[in-house]
Amino acid sequence: MSDDRPIGFFDSGLGGLTVLKAVRARFPQENLVYLGDTARLPYGTKSPQTIRRYTEQNIAALQKLNVKAIVVACNSASTSILGGDRKTIAGLPVDFPIFNVIEPGAEAAHKASTERRIGVLGTKATVLSQAYAKSLHAIDAKVQVFQQPAPLLVPLVEEGWEEDPLTNLVIYRYLAPLIANRIDTLILGCTHYPVLKAGIARVAGGAVHLVDSAEAIADQLREAKASGRLNPHNPAEGSKGRLELLATDTSPSMNEAAQRLLRTADAPSENIAFKAFDL
Amino acid sequence: MSDDRPIGFFDSGLGGLTVLKAVRARFPQENLVYLGDTARLPYGTKSPQTIRRYTEQNIAALQKLNVKAIVVACNSASTSILGGDRKTIAGLPVDFPIFNVIEPGAEAAHKASTERRIGVLGTKATVLSQAYAKSLHAIDAKVQVFQQPAPLLVPLVEEGWEEDPLTNLVIYRYLAPLIANRIDTLILGCTHYPVLKAGIARVAGGAVHLVDSAEAIADQLREAKASGRLNPHNPAEGSKGRLELLATDTSPSMNEAAQRLLRTADAPSENIAFKAFDL
Repeated sequence: MSDDRPIGFFDSGLGGLTVLKAVRARFPQENLVYLGDTARLPYGTKSPQTIRRYTEQNIAALQKLNVKAIVVACNSASTSILGGDRKTIAGLPVDFPIFNVIEPGAEAAHKASTERRIGVLGTKATVLSQAYAKSLHAIDAKVQVFQQPAPLLVPLVEEGWEEDPLTNLVIYRYLAPLIANRIDTLILGCTHYPVLKAGIARVAGGAVHLVDSAEAIADQLREAKASGRLNPHNPAEGSKGRLELLATDTSPSMNEAAQRLLRTADAPSENIAFKAFDL
Repeated sequence: MSDDRPIGFFDSGLGGLTVLKAVRARFPQENLVYLGDTARLPYGTKSPQTIRRYTEQNIAALQKLNVKAIVVACNSASTSILGGDRKTIAGLPVDFPIFNVIEPGAEAAHKASTERRIGVLGTKATVLSQAYAKSLHAIDAKVQVFQQPAPLLVPLVEEGWEEDPLTNLVIYRYLAPLIANRIDTLILGCTHYPVLKAGIARVAGGAVHLVDSAEAIADQLREAKASGRLNPHNPAEGSKGRLELLATDTSPSMNEAAQRLLRTADAPSENIAFKAFDL
């Protein structure tokens, strides 16, 4: 059986493309649609009730696009829909799986951790929600969780200062209390942070295992396919899936930024063009 | 004649309170209403068409609250309504004065400048709009304008790092090209920046005149009152005006931040509570 309906992704902005990229690399035949709520980004500084409202609007919009599954490719948004399969969102029946980035991230971190001392770097909203702490404690009550809000990291990435000494100073400032707590594993709890992985690894040191949710989500999709929860797309000719990119605010610089985030060795200069979309 | 209708202010977030504070200090008897579009902040990273749409929505909302004038207390929003009095906004007739922060800031900078070499620090949207350059050149075609987008300054203020060495490094990075261009005057082209005035002054050096729009707007209101464009509120008993604070997203930390921004020597601990408001 082959199901050519797209898998839907959404994020407040472009960071979720790091998740889409990992899924696309694993399942190149799937059709994908990505929705960035760029007119209202960021979510990570906003209140739980506002993040929940935005999340439900994004899910309802993707549902209308006839997706077969949704990946909430934003940690801040994921905090508002934890708990696996939901039967309704904003009063609408939901008959497809919805994946969040937090639970697979917590599972991957628990697997990687040797000392059960796990750090979480995230937006204010993600940290305040305690979503990672709750997910980790649901797996193992004895895990010690050390959280650090890191609100400047996304603006630094957006400024294009990924490799800048200033960014390393900010990373050091945020990681210092986690290192002092002798974490052995660090969850990159925002889909923008993988862009800073090299700098974070340098500051954290080789002994700290870094976990980003992108690979963990791809693993979850594989399991969902194996268990029959998610129908695969198996085109006869084995052709590549389509990628549709939508955003609530568009600009030429966004297309360039997306191109950088999606770039692979095989496809270094894919043509990227977001289409304007009203929520 | 006394007109007790409030003067309306709006901004994407809380930065515009620096403008409201200056107006309130000058006209303590006026009733004021402030609207922060905190559910969609910031504006300065968004496209001109989205900023215009949001600006028109804010103006329409304040109009419904029966204001006698509106101060657009946000540079990014001001870029979309330049050109003085407008007869319609978003198709609605506008029968009250609308003040923007850019034109008075440009006038104040021109007055302060001795060498006609003026720097502008602003959001990406403000810099890309060329609004300050156009306003300055409308006053004096011979002014040389040097612009610098400074997208990290607002997040640094929101992180509470106003006095941090890291913030000074970022300020230095942004000001270095302006200093190299030998500016004699610097426009603080975002209503958040006055919070960083001490750090900016230290980096810019004593010879550079710093201009923030708050005082310039207060001057404009005084002139509008003198010319009869704006009716004053003259309560018989000389009592203080009311302050109403509205926001599209609310949180306890916002109230604390607003309290810090509005604090004066006379009123160090005013009780501040934003009311939730839907646009």
